[in-house]
Amino acid sequence: MGMVGGGRGAFIGAVHRMAAALDGQIELVCGAFSSNPKKSKLSGKDLFLPANRVYKNFEEMILEEKKLPLGECMDFVAIVTPNHMHFPPAKMALENGFHVVCDKPLCFDLKEAKALVKLVKKTGLLFALTHNYTGYPMVKHARELVSANKLGKIRKVLVNYPQGWLSTFLEKTDQKQAAWRTDPKRSGIAGAMGDIGTHAENLAEYITRLKITHLCADLHSFVPGRKLDDDGSVLLKFDNGARGVLMASQISAGEENNLNIKVYGEKGGLEWSQMQPNTMWLKWLDKPTEKVRIGVGKQSAHVMNHTRIPAGHPEGYLEAFANIYRNFAHCVQARLANKKPNKSFTDFPTVEDGLRGMEFIYKVVASSKSKSKWTKW
Amino acid sequence: MGMVGGGRGAFIGAVHRMAAALDGQIELVCGAFSSNPKKSKLSGKDLFLPANRVYKNFEEMILEEKKLPLGECMDFVAIVTPNHMHFPPAKMALENGFHVVCDKPLCFDLKEAKALVKLVKKTGLLFALTHNYTGYPMVKHARELVSANKLGKIRKVLVNYPQGWLSTFLEKTDQKQAAWRTDPKRSGIAGAMGDIGTHAENLAEYITRLKITHLCADLHSFVPGRKLDDDGSVLLKFDNGARGVLMASQISAGEENNLNIKVYGEKGGLEWSQMQPNTMWLKWLDKPTEKVRIGVGKQSAHVMNHTRIPAGHPEGYLEAFANIYRNFAHCVQARLANKKPNKSFTDFPTVEDGLRGMEFIYKVVASSKSKSKWTKW
Amino acid sequence: MGMVGGGRGAFIGAVHRMAAALDGQIELVCGAFSSNPKKSKLSGKDLFLPANRVYKNFEEMILEEKKLPLGECMDFVAIVTPNHMHFPPAKMALENGFHVVCDKPLCFDLKEAKALVKLVKKTGLLFALTHNYTGYPMVKHARELVSANKLGKIRKVLVNYPQGWLSTFLEKTDQKQAAWRTDPKRSGIAGAMGDIGTHAENLAEYITRLKITHLCADLHSFVPGRKLDDDGSVLLKFDNGARGVLMASQISAGEENNLNIKVYGEKGGLEWSQMQPNTMWLKWLDKPTEKVRIGVGKQSAHVMNHTRIPAGHPEGYLEAFANIYRNFAHCVQARLANKKPNKSFTDFPTVEDGLRGMEFIYKVVASSKSKSKWTKW
Amino acid sequence: MGMVGGGRGAFIGAVHRMAAALDGQIELVCGAFSSNPKKSKLSGKDLFLPANRVYKNFEEMILEEKKLPLGECMDFVAIVTPNHMHFPPAKMALENGFHVVCDKPLCFDLKEAKALVKLVKKTGLLFALTHNYTGYPMVKHARELVSANKLGKIRKVLVNYPQGWLSTFLEKTDQKQAAWRTDPKRSGIAGAMGDIGTHAENLAEYITRLKITHLCADLHSFVPGRKLDDDGSVLLKFDNGARGVLMASQISAGEENNLNIKVYGEKGGLEWSQMQPNTMWLKWLDKPTEKVRIGVGKQSAHVMNHTRIPAGHPEGYLEAFANIYRNFAHCVQARLANKKPNKSFTDFPTVEDGLRGMEFIYKVVASSKSKSKWTKW
Repeated sequence: MGMVGGGRGAFIGAVHRMAAALDGQIELVCGAFSSNPKKSKLSGKDLFLPANRVYKNFEEMILEEKKLPLGECMDFVAIVTPNHMHFPPAKMALENGFHVVCDKPLCFDLKEAKALVKLVKKTGLLFALTHNYTGYPMVKHARELVSANKLGKIRKVLVNYPQGWLSTFLEKTDQKQAAWRTDPKRSGIAGAMGDIGTHAENLAEYITRLKITHLCADLHSFVPGRKLDDDGSVLLKFDNGARGVLMASQISAGEENNLNIKVYGEKGGLEWSQMQPNTMWLKWLDKPTEKVRIGVGKQSAHVMNHTRIPAGHPEGYLEAFANIYRNFAHCVQARLANKKPNKSFTDFPTVEDGLRGMEFIYKVVASSKSKSKWTKW
Repeated sequence: MGMVGGGRGAFIGAVHRMAAALDGQIELVCGAFSSNPKKSKLSGKDLFLPANRVYKNFEEMILEEKKLPLGECMDFVAIVTPNHMHFPPAKMALENGFHVVCDKPLCFDLKEAKALVKLVKKTGLLFALTHNYTGYPMVKHARELVSANKLGKIRKVLVNYPQGWLSTFLEKTDQKQAAWRTDPKRSGIAGAMGDIGTHAENLAEYITRLKITHLCADLHSFVPGRKLDDDGSVLLKFDNGARGVLMASQISAGEENNLNIKVYGEKGGLEWSQMQPNTMWLKWLDKPTEKVRIGVGKQSAHVMNHTRIPAGHPEGYLEAFANIYRNFAHCVQARLANKKPNKSFTDFPTVEDGLRGMEFIYKVVASSKSKSKWTKW
Repeated sequence: MGMVGGGRGAFIGAVHRMAAALDGQIELVCGAFSSNPKKSKLSGKDLFLPANRVYKNFEEMILEEKKLPLGECMDFVAIVTPNHMHFPPAKMALENGFHVVCDKPLCFDLKEAKALVKLVKKTGLLFALTHNYTGYPMVKHARELVSANKLGKIRKVLVNYPQGWLSTFLEKTDQKQAAWRTDPKRSGIAGAMGDIGTHAENLAEYITRLKITHLCADLHSFVPGRKLDDDGSVLLKFDNGARGVLMASQISAGEENNLNIKVYGEKGGLEWSQMQPNTMWLKWLDKPTEKVRIGVGKQSAHVMNHTRIPAGHPEGYLEAFANIYRNFAHCVQARLANKKPNKSFTDFPTVEDGLRGMEFIYKVVASSKSKSKWTKW
Repeated sequence: MGMVGGGRGAFIGAVHRMAAALDGQIELVCGAFSSNPKKSKLSGKDLFLPANRVYKNFEEMILEEKKLPLGECMDFVAIVTPNHMHFPPAKMALENGFHVVCDKPLCFDLKEAKALVKLVKKTGLLFALTHNYTGYPMVKHARELVSANKLGKIRKVLVNYPQGWLSTFLEKTDQKQAAWRTDPKRSGIAGAMGDIGTHAENLAEYITRLKITHLCADLHSFVPGRKLDDDGSVLLKFDNGARGVLMASQISAGEENNLNIKVYGEKGGLEWSQMQPNTMWLKWLDKPTEKVRIGVGKQSAHVMNHTRIPAGHPEGYLEAFANIYRNFAHCVQARLANKKPNKSFTDFPTVEDGLRGMEFIYKVVASSKSKSKWTKW
């Protein structure tokens, strides 16, 4: 693995490295960790990389690594830069024959997203998008239960992603995370909806296998001076007639990272929260609510493939994130070995999920500006 | 107290009687418990009433009780009939000089609601509406915290009232509660929104002291054959610029009676759920969430007036309901004694709250039919 | 009902009155509310009692009421005084033909307890002890599940009753509750173990139908100057070979009134907490934990007889307390009508439960003083 | 790092490898993964190790690695075998100059434990014992709060470790984990008390900095045919006069891995549960309970050193385990660089903690057999 971005002081780069390392399947062999070459060098040293594999920029990395023999060169590129810097390295990596893991949202705008989808299709290379919340084994279990019609026809979906960390004008301070996420030039046309609303959309569609067909959004920016939305609520219609509400907020004071979802069908309901990821509540019309726990009772081999330790030994965010990397690594290894991958390990978000996320951003922003109730997707 | 409705087999009548009895301030002295005179008599016997104080109908009750001397006759009428039968006894009671306690929603339609407001004003009599959820001491504490600006300016209000009991076509069975609540001729123009959505609206406005100014509703009826909405989601704007979402659903499979609210301000947030009524969560920007419990730490005399037993001895639905009756009884006693009531005991929902609830129903139904995003209230 | 004790400023007297009033089956007709006759009079006036039914002391009350005709006189006496004042009125009431409801623990010492058991047997009168926590419907459901062998043979019982209100030397202040509870002359030979440990013992034996046969206690008094134990832990052996631990503490800082129990059998376990009384957790060897809620799914008619309102409308401490009074009233009414009571309504704690509680106190205190590990009960 | 044990099918070996890999500070360079040389080879291949670094047994590994130059040879040995196989490789590693990480309990018996303490002292080498639960950042925060006297003088400590997985005679099946843990020849003189009771003891003493001075134990074996205790309760006295109860059970049906602790002092109490490791409850005499969350509000640099990602992104068991490895690696690196380690990174359980755990096992077993109440430690 070669990394673009994620130098000293970055948050998500370290997450990607831990997630990649956890299962002993991936080795970090090179990187272009910063747009500042000196910082890139220092970051590489921190990571025990040889100096010659720490590059000035991603262009150099891709060109130089391409010269190395297979088995020595990086097998794929991990892109962990701010949104506006996803497309250039992703494009160049694909064009030079490297598989790609890219942080979400997919890119800066819809045009780039469509171009990437085309490029992935054209090159036939592997592309994973780190919508990490669908990496949790319990989310996979939820998806299986819905698919098996355990809840009956789905009627209502409530997905809510409250955070409170942008309750103040944090982008005025040195806080790097806040600065780029609230800057339209680096983040894109949406703030909270792009940063976390896309996770909520991805989660809802992943679990239910339904598609949003209409939406009615009210985005707002509460903090004076802020350039992008920091809070939004969206009414939803799904392709089976179900209704829903999606909320994404970064001004919900006192909330940490509380992505949660409730799905109600004709026969039962489920509830899952990211902050208690090993638990899911199954509710029924006429019997007790069940506290479903990963590793307790019947769960499919596919679900169990995405957990590492016995019930009661909590797994968390990094393990879910690692599931994407572990699955991706399995598929890359299968390619290298000219084998078919185990189907269970092909379950990771793709460039198409990324495109859908970008479309969601565009539709939500358009709806929020519209005076009509429903915007068709 | 004389009661209209609430005969054998009714649900809410017994609740009113227990709530009225709890604090030893109110005695049930007469009733017209059913439109069926025989059933009324039997119900009265169950309740140890003398036969001559059990009446054939509310008209008889009001006229006969009026003939009795003060101190012997009933002091007020409690109306616990289905919605379409609130207005006639309320009107007649007021016109004959009796104070009124009425179940919610106030009445069948907006016209009746406006007439009642006028009549209460004209007669100067006391009128309590049993929006019982605002009777909880913790709800009063929440209102005080918001009023004291502890959370800062309010930005977002999420109020959600999911139930699952109407997930099936229950009105086809003998279930009396389901039958009238889903019947436009007895319930009015709304189903879930009238039955429980009005509680949510009342709770949100009571705690925040904000007024909803615009709303965008999506009401739906999921169960085939059902005549009224059984699920709805509403985007809200409040008079201070805050945004919100109100949901009311009776097809949220597996949910009991899960009214809950989250309020976020500039400085903090609160969360309260009716099913854990003695607890409120206070969330802050940069310190631990507090688990506020009734009776623990500082709470105002007004709040403490609405709890009866020490912390850790759970009080529930009936006690909150009893708070309305106890306060109402205090005000009636003050009238009889020609004294000014203690201000703390004047805190109960009034006919004006009832009118606001009826307006809410009308606005939500209109918005749901509209193609425009926002409907002004 | 005539009441002994419970005048102005008392806590448990008001609880008894609310519990007795709730279901409309019991009327307070007289009382001797205080050892101070003036205070008794004022208390009676607060309660709307006629002056001639408010007595100077319990002796007068019993003698005068005895002179009144049946139907007019009190049907039973409710005793809500401190422990050392339970026996005299109970004895006199029974000797004069009145049924008795008595607060727990039964009395001051073992000798009194044995005398009361004899007297109840001899007179054939009804005697209820207000071990209110076994009045909760969920506790009855738990007892039924264990009886039906749903958990298999019971192996381990953990019952814990932490409170924190005596963490400081509260008896030095004017706090009336603290003063008598920590005074050996009014409370008896035990402090926390008598006041709340007996509730824990009663709960454990009620749910499991097992009897404690051996115990090993460590009682301690942490607060300097305190005369009785304020904390204790007890190892238990039960008559079926099960083991257990009982804890009772009033110096568990920050705890409210957190009585809770866990029972583990060969096939499953249950967990219940008084502060969330409408919920019980059922745990299984190889399937999800169930969140059992009163009113949801299958529960027996007996259990449902002890709840008043639908699922999701929380009932609490007063309702559980009222179940004892309602059942007791039913049995008194049956006596008066010369009928056999409904078996479901005969479920309330008796004088024998009271004796067992007194024995528990004696055994625990003896064990705590002993150097041997096990004390036989 | 070279590993002893942890071949295919083992549980704790994989945990150690993931924990070691997570932070990118440790590379697995060799191993003797099984007493079966063929299985060892296959396991090494799974782990991408070169064949010549996969050894037949630990003796070979230690001798061969010793021949390699520093920087190429393993820097330390990780021992992940059953208890009876801890001592031989630990001793040989130390005698040959290698630092050691060893799974808990320290070894098979007290004699071995004392020998290891001596050897570590004599060699001056680093020795970490993986009492992983004290690796959680919240446990470190708890320890700091107690040390800073926030709770006042500690009065009561309740530590409970229930599991349910040995509720049946699992050792009769092929379940490898059950087989050795219930076998006195491989596990030692205690079952549940050795396997998990030692974790509870370590946690209680780590958080409170108190020492157990007396204990009174009741160990029992509930499952017919089982050779070692599967359940036990222990009364405790601490060196400051505090009292406590420690429970360890593997027949608590339906429990997963529910290690939890409650500590009560004069001013407040804390509660922490391993299954929700990022949360701690702080309870106070006269203000609301606080829900303390890692990363929210003030926490020391030392605590923050032991968390990797922002609040609301759950960290779990592997991250806590990794904290031990990361700290140990830091100390090894400091040795290699001839520097003083950062004090914060010297916080990991040592061979002395291991000895204390072995003493605990011996004292508990002795107490359980004794007829006297208190056994002195």
